[in-house]
Amino acid sequence: MKSDVDRLMRDRGLDAIIVTGGEEFNTARYYLSNGARITHGSIFQVVGKPALLVCNRMELEEAAKSGLDVLTDVELGFYDRYKEAEGNSIRGTALHWSDVLARLGLKAGRIGLYGTWQVNQTIALYEALKTDLAQYEFVYEAENTLIEEAMLTKDAAEIARIKTVAERTNAVMEIAWDFIAGLRRVGENLVDEDGRPVTIGDVKNLVRRELMARGLEDTNMIFAQGRDAGFPHSRGEADMPLQVGQAIVFDLFPRELGGGYHHDMTRTWCIGCAPQEVRETYETVLEAFDISVEAFGLNKPTHLMQEAVLDHFERAGHQTTRSHPSTMEGYVHSLGHGVGIDIHERPSISHLRQDDICQIGNILTIEPGLYYPERGFGVRIEDLFVVDEKGELVSLTPFRKDLVIPLADDSGAAQ
Amino acid sequence: MKSDVDRLMRDRGLDAIIVTGGEEFNTARYYLSNGARITHGSIFQVVGKPALLVCNRMELEEAAKSGLDVLTDVELGFYDRYKEAEGNSIRGTALHWSDVLARLGLKAGRIGLYGTWQVNQTIALYEALKTDLAQYEFVYEAENTLIEEAMLTKDAAEIARIKTVAERTNAVMEIAWDFIAGLRRVGENLVDEDGRPVTIGDVKNLVRRELMARGLEDTNMIFAQGRDAGFPHSRGEADMPLQVGQAIVFDLFPRELGGGYHHDMTRTWCIGCAPQEVRETYETVLEAFDISVEAFGLNKPTHLMQEAVLDHFERAGHQTTRSHPSTMEGYVHSLGHGVGIDIHERPSISHLRQDDICQIGNILTIEPGLYYPERGFGVRIEDLFVVDEKGELVSLTPFRKDLVIPLADDSGAAQ
Repeated sequence: MKSDVDRLMRDRGLDAIIVTGGEEFNTARYYLSNGARITHGSIFQVVGKPALLVCNRMELEEAAKSGLDVLTDVELGFYDRYKEAEGNSIRGTALHWSDVLARLGLKAGRIGLYGTWQVNQTIALYEALKTDLAQYEFVYEAENTLIEEAMLTKDAAEIARIKTVAERTNAVMEIAWDFIAGLRRVGENLVDEDGRPVTIGDVKNLVRRELMARGLEDTNMIFAQGRDAGFPHSRGEADMPLQVGQAIVFDLFPRELGGGYHHDMTRTWCIGCAPQEVRETYETVLEAFDISVEAFGLNKPTHLMQEAVLDHFERAGHQTTRSHPSTMEGYVHSLGHGVGIDIHERPSISHLRQDDICQIGNILTIEPGLYYPERGFGVRIEDLFVVDEKGELVSLTPFRKDLVIPLADDSGAAQ
Repeated sequence: MKSDVDRLMRDRGLDAIIVTGGEEFNTARYYLSNGARITHGSIFQVVGKPALLVCNRMELEEAAKSGLDVLTDVELGFYDRYKEAEGNSIRGTALHWSDVLARLGLKAGRIGLYGTWQVNQTIALYEALKTDLAQYEFVYEAENTLIEEAMLTKDAAEIARIKTVAERTNAVMEIAWDFIAGLRRVGENLVDEDGRPVTIGDVKNLVRRELMARGLEDTNMIFAQGRDAGFPHSRGEADMPLQVGQAIVFDLFPRELGGGYHHDMTRTWCIGCAPQEVRETYETVLEAFDISVEAFGLNKPTHLMQEAVLDHFERAGHQTTRSHPSTMEGYVHSLGHGVGIDIHERPSISHLRQDDICQIGNILTIEPGLYYPERGFGVRIEDLFVVDEKGELVSLTPFRKDLVIPLADDSGAAQ
């Protein structure tokens, strides 16, 4: 967790870390600045010292909310360095960093670089650092990064935040269910009070409004019906009318407004009734879900959960990415992932990743699914879990796992 | 504009470009994939050939909406390369890229790298490419990038989209004005029908709801009152009650829902009445705004507009970043910037940037401001403009530029 950053630097032989980037949402910067809403700024943390946030003068007030030490680029002489670099902002930044590091008392050493930025600017800065700051060794971790490892376990404050996001997301899921259950059936369509066929876009708009009313924002939810549900990441077509008896994969993963912690949950619904093959597939996926939860063990490798599910699906005659690595149907993704400021964090729950273990403070999804686009359906069931302080896997997604949304008024079926 | 990409590659001596990244919103990928909502995938474009979008198999349906050629990583043998790289995904990606480039017929040459990604992963991939794909030269442009230059001028379809975003944003600004004008004054506070003091958070929530109802999303608007208004990028405190007679800087820059084109506008308001020094400062800023517009000339350098404003402010006795480079008050930012998929694009309108010129197809802001946090106020006025096909600067922000929002019921002033 966040309080481990200093220890993680020592473990990795790093004398400092620098988190940088541009205006893009920057997970590492958000995390280490405690959610300060800055669009320019870098964080410098030297082992054993408090972190320093260096910001643009225009963002001083927002930067102060981080609780970190804050200095502006003006105070640190950035513009003199920019002039010295003859207006080359990348070189100016490199020289400015040497000033900041000197001020923090680090004259040489190994520095880990993190953050989110443009690919081209990152490489340019990296090359400038190698040239102009040769007294330092700049370290880039491609996997199992220090930031990922810190974020792998959440502290009590983070878990409390995620729990409230979870409660609000479950409430919105209930509103979507109730809305659909209250529609009237006309043939295969579902119509509102005015007799107008209700579309996927209508449901998404309702969900977005209800999320916002609760201080959450949609981050491109999936509400995919029929064949679209057969592609795990198809978002669904806004103008497609809701249809009776089609599988709908509804994957909702909002976050706190303006960027922050997520919840992540998926339900598969059929409105009014479900075809036999969807019912059977749903049962198989629900069994996989239960098998995953049973396969959980504190301090056990996460991939054992995935392998239990792969065994189950393969026994039931479905292709998987283990049995058929290039398959486009059957079970085509991993079982789950950590969730936090990013929607996909560690731990991974995949047979391709053997080194993650289940730890206290993990927040992770379990989301088995089966996909048959050519047969016009897909099924996924997903809850978010916390590994609590007792080491138990506790769901944050109490919402019911029913396949069929019964219609309050199903009289239109005969029309 | 986008149709210039091939020519820009030739101009810059590039044989190909690759746009890559992770799940972060990726401006270059969004732009070149025509807004496809993919979270994994890279675009490969070789000079003289159509662009190829390589995506994860789960995102095939969304990727197809790009209109580009699409292949999945599975089809291209990524997982074999991943195995060959012994599970090192960065090296696997580098080897996979060599397969893609060979398939596109590029055996050697100069390749520009673009996109948005984690800093650490970008550097790791760059190093792997230099090692494993030595037949190519990888080019990183830190400034004046090919992508920026393409985005510098918008095509007719982009301008049409931005115009509708502008209309919707102006409409929401009107709703916010009307909401405030309809509040009742009680002493220095403004109260709703129930007599409850209305806060900045209430206004922001209204604005977010009204944006969403129009298919737009807030990207962290500024609604900063009093001293906060004196810091250009202070967002404003949600729980601060609206106050009569305080300067409020309201900078609204929403984008199409889920990512897309922006509008950008700022108004400075005082509710009920305005203090004399705010009125005077407002007039000075409004003059600066008009001076900027007059200083515009097709094919003329943008910095001339900024210099006209610097001259004006300095004549009026205000510090600027030209006269006092480290000033924290007066005129502390540049005059404007391009707007598109990113909120800050080229052209820049700054005296520190001499190489941008005003061109047909530019979409840009003009936003002079003066800031006096220690005196408890700031003022900014901002419109968005298009340089139309006749070379004229046309505002997309017709919303009135009145400082004072008169209260319909100002009877509470006597209380």
